[in-house]
Amino acid sequence: MTDSYRTKLINSLSGFKSANLIGTINKQGQTNLAIFSSVVHLGASPALIGFITRPHTVTRHTLENIKQTKQFTINQVNKDIWRSAHQTSARYDADQCEFQHTGLTPIFIDEVNAPFVKESLLKYALTLEEIVPVAANNTQLVIGKVTNIICEPHAIRKDGYIDIESLETVSISGLDSYHVTERLSRLSYAKKDKLPEDLSIDGDRLSKQ
Amino acid sequence: MTDSYRTKLINSLSGFKSANLIGTINKQGQTNLAIFSSVVHLGASPALIGFITRPHTVTRHTLENIKQTKQFTINQVNKDIWRSAHQTSARYDADQCEFQHTGLTPIFIDEVNAPFVKESLLKYALTLEEIVPVAANNTQLVIGKVTNIICEPHAIRKDGYIDIESLETVSISGLDSYHVTERLSRLSYAKKDKLPEDLSIDGDRLSKQ
Repeated sequence: MTDSYRTKLINSLSGFKSANLIGTINKQGQTNLAIFSSVVHLGASPALIGFITRPHTVTRHTLENIKQTKQFTINQVNKDIWRSAHQTSARYDADQCEFQHTGLTPIFIDEVNAPFVKESLLKYALTLEEIVPVAANNTQLVIGKVTNIICEPHAIRKDGYIDIESLETVSISGLDSYHVTERLSRLSYAKKDKLPEDLSIDGDRLSKQ
Repeated sequence: MTDSYRTKLINSLSGFKSANLIGTINKQGQTNLAIFSSVVHLGASPALIGFITRPHTVTRHTLENIKQTKQFTINQVNKDIWRSAHQTSARYDADQCEFQHTGLTPIFIDEVNAPFVKESLLKYALTLEEIVPVAANNTQLVIGKVTNIICEPHAIRKDGYIDIESLETVSISGLDSYHVTERLSRLSYAKKDKLPEDLSIDGDRLSKQ
């Protein structure tokens, strides 16, 4: 197995991955934007979300900036911007802005120093909560607490579920494959003695025919 | 916001999640199977994959078993088994086997004590590498090293990429929504001064028309 073959194979094992752009800024006001496929839900209360970062890679500026300014944004990648999002992984220098080079648009809100991606339809700001070192391979799990959510209102359904498929949010397989989705169904909370039932997009039980 | 609304909302933020069944066994030989949406790639060399677990939940047996026997399997959920996979999240007792109650079939190979899911088309065994505590919300990142991969050969492409869409692997959004996928494209490695090109499923550049 070559290194390249191995990287592509192992990156395919975990299943479909989230596609998110992480926006940061350093103390000098230089913005940075990088795509990550390792964003993971940690808990709803408090609302904690993490991502994996490794040292000495093209994404190192993301972590450096978060350490400096304690805030970052996560912006879901959708079908209109997936090529530009992928392009953020090119090896730009620290003083080059991925926004400028990829055509994505930085926008700011009052309480948050880090830039959001205007073109993303579901995005949120986080404050740094914890950086957890992973001894096994010298990576780090960077954890933030969600402070501000910006989302197209029509996508937020009655019970709190956000229909990210309607936002054309994409997912990633392997290192470089991008996918849109087609919903099979939502399912009711699993109970011991009965099979799960299909739910509507709003979380209601569908009446039996 | 009710707790239920908040849980569904926050669980939607991270984007599409992987859908995997984790198979374990305890020292007494009792098997366990549980669905997780937090499996995440950590590195290819060594091949490390992790997942998030929280204490005192229905999935606590998974971690207890891994601590006892040091091995576990991860099995991608596909379109034939997504309902049964969801059903593993019902609150079965420690002495009840999710395999029996969901109709999924345990299979074993020589070097691995933990059960695989026969119906899964891409599955692998791991040995426990590290359990990383997350102070922020008392969860843990459980990390394993991949030892054995079992995959339909036709899905493994020329450059190592596994076409998990051809295996009908599903993804999850929110707590309870399941999705199949449709590939947009693979993209070439991003370089500073040119836009990414579309790649074939085997990783070859497509000739320009």
